[in-house]
Amino acid sequence: MKIANWSKTLKNNFLFQAVADKLKQFKSKYPEKEIINMGIGDVSLPLADEVIKACTFAANEMGKSSSFRGYSPNGGYDFLKQKIKDEYKNLGILVNTDEIFISDGAKSDMSNILDIFSSGNTCLIPDPVYPVYLDTSIMEGMKIEFANAVEQNNFLPEPDFNKKVDIIYVCSPNNPTGAAYTKNQMKKWIDYANSCDAVILYDAAYEAFIEDNDLCRSIFEIPESKTCAIEFKSFSKSAGFTGMRCGYSIVPNDLQRENASLNHLWSRRHATKFNGVPYIIQRAAEASLSDEGKLECQKSIKYYKQNAKLISEVLNKLSIKFFGGLNSPYIWLKCPNNMTSWEFFDYLLQDLNIVGTPGSGFGKNGENYFRLSCFASREKTQEACNRFLKLL
Amino acid sequence: MKIANWSKTLKNNFLFQAVADKLKQFKSKYPEKEIINMGIGDVSLPLADEVIKACTFAANEMGKSSSFRGYSPNGGYDFLKQKIKDEYKNLGILVNTDEIFISDGAKSDMSNILDIFSSGNTCLIPDPVYPVYLDTSIMEGMKIEFANAVEQNNFLPEPDFNKKVDIIYVCSPNNPTGAAYTKNQMKKWIDYANSCDAVILYDAAYEAFIEDNDLCRSIFEIPESKTCAIEFKSFSKSAGFTGMRCGYSIVPNDLQRENASLNHLWSRRHATKFNGVPYIIQRAAEASLSDEGKLECQKSIKYYKQNAKLISEVLNKLSIKFFGGLNSPYIWLKCPNNMTSWEFFDYLLQDLNIVGTPGSGFGKNGENYFRLSCFASREKTQEACNRFLKLL
Repeated sequence: MKIANWSKTLKNNFLFQAVADKLKQFKSKYPEKEIINMGIGDVSLPLADEVIKACTFAANEMGKSSSFRGYSPNGGYDFLKQKIKDEYKNLGILVNTDEIFISDGAKSDMSNILDIFSSGNTCLIPDPVYPVYLDTSIMEGMKIEFANAVEQNNFLPEPDFNKKVDIIYVCSPNNPTGAAYTKNQMKKWIDYANSCDAVILYDAAYEAFIEDNDLCRSIFEIPESKTCAIEFKSFSKSAGFTGMRCGYSIVPNDLQRENASLNHLWSRRHATKFNGVPYIIQRAAEASLSDEGKLECQKSIKYYKQNAKLISEVLNKLSIKFFGGLNSPYIWLKCPNNMTSWEFFDYLLQDLNIVGTPGSGFGKNGENYFRLSCFASREKTQEACNRFLKLL
Repeated sequence: MKIANWSKTLKNNFLFQAVADKLKQFKSKYPEKEIINMGIGDVSLPLADEVIKACTFAANEMGKSSSFRGYSPNGGYDFLKQKIKDEYKNLGILVNTDEIFISDGAKSDMSNILDIFSSGNTCLIPDPVYPVYLDTSIMEGMKIEFANAVEQNNFLPEPDFNKKVDIIYVCSPNNPTGAAYTKNQMKKWIDYANSCDAVILYDAAYEAFIEDNDLCRSIFEIPESKTCAIEFKSFSKSAGFTGMRCGYSIVPNDLQRENASLNHLWSRRHATKFNGVPYIIQRAAEASLSDEGKLECQKSIKYYKQNAKLISEVLNKLSIKFFGGLNSPYIWLKCPNNMTSWEFFDYLLQDLNIVGTPGSGFGKNGENYFRLSCFASREKTQEACNRFLKLL
């Protein structure tokens, strides 16, 4: 009996778990303190009315013989896939429903997708980035290369045509830096991937926050991507679904490697290891893409963006350098006084009772940076801003 | 870029997908035929009223700021884990809540658990059995040994103390044969696993169908299992949750291998690759374990058992040899006239318009056998029984 190799190589604590543990400790020591959590990217606004309506309607359907539903079809229900197809149509992109796979979220998808690739492939991972890419790549026995995202390149690394990699992670808008690629910039990555047989895993979880028109909303806006990219999306941030669990991946039928269709491999992986998303949740996701549902969801996004604006203004006042917050729900700030990320974390928690996420948890280039999320309530965000002013 | 090795070795079609494809073909050829599906183990009765109530209540909570919930805690909500803990207490088993991991179902769990073990371990898999064990073991690069489940051993293989394996799959009551181990029989497997450092993956998805008192309801009824076993359970069959997606695994804190806690490894795997089960679904599962919910769910189980009885009676009349149907929702019959499993499948579909599952899809010992599920409605089961009588 041998346990998994990663048990010896993976860092002991998942970043957000480490933050949660520190927070728990602090809370039990100072139960009276009113903590504002701007750490984990968890939403705070309730679900849209349309979503709740669809949800309760579907729940009641499950209570009647005539409308009860058992196992979901592999890959998800057509009613939801059609709505997603329409969303892509609005961007001028043709996606077939058999290219869409409904899942319980982008985190699961971005992890599970590695099942269709051999271990020993070389993964190119931005640094800093969402730690799940690195952790799951280690778990799957991949070789790791990093693409440095630093102030000098506006946190947007470009491909190095002299190097060969197999799997390329792109998160745009980026978590944690908030940096987002333009279509022209993404075209370079696509040319690179096509030139060296690599596959781009494109995480578009924060697409709903994009407002600049030249930014890339879907990698499939660049047609050449269909032979080299898989796109991952989530309802977590676009519709407040963190507690609802729904997302999807798009694997183009044109995407082949070693003469095999990656779409077929992914479909087989889904059929073998997964049993679909609850019917009720798929109906809820569908409702979030109805005309009324979209309006409500956009209102929430606006609300969070206004939070970002408030924080940005305070940081400007404090002359603290920061990035993001415009096409992204995250603000990526440089820790004042040359503090390390965890020093600043402890300082914020102890002195201001504010929780954020240490930049170093996202990679070595994240050291001395810090991530604030804009998902708290307006009231708490304003209160946090007041506390920040005390930093001066 | 190398795609996964399993893409070359895994059989092309997941069993239930193959059945679904044949069914689809038949339906498009004969759209007027009224087909009775006794194939996939999908339930047909609507959810319990208590479950629907909890579900709609939770959905409405998600629509209000004051009661909205984002990400679930890693491993699941305490309200559900407490209820599960109480269920085990009723069996005289002490389980800590940190040993319980809520998931989207036993299929996902039984697949994902292999992430905590190294590839190259030897898996002992019953033949015949639920195909997911074999497929996912192949996917994870395990060595495979089979434990023959045949008529001569009442489809209940015993351990071979002269052989060493690392991971042992047990499904009791078994899918597809319906055979279930007694506590004494399970004790042998536990002694064997403890003697050779193996881990038993105990799939108790069909536990709700057990009525004989000497049968094993939980592997933890045998105390020595805490150092060698992980138990997997599902709400799919006990509460009709196939379209709701909820299950759980129990990894004892005493379960160590290579000086590592498997509980910690599984927790880390959960935190890294999974984001939990929807709050609404966890509330629904909780309600299925309330006093009222349990009564309703037991009524459904009784209903399905009555279906099994009806089918059993017809098979007896027809002098078709069969197993199961008593402590299991499946009837495992010997194909009449020495037909192969797929021949009988085609015959049933063509001539009687009944869909079942070919035994050979569950392993080589399943050849010439056939699985019928008892999850159809009473009306359809009765109609199927009438059609079966035409077999004579």
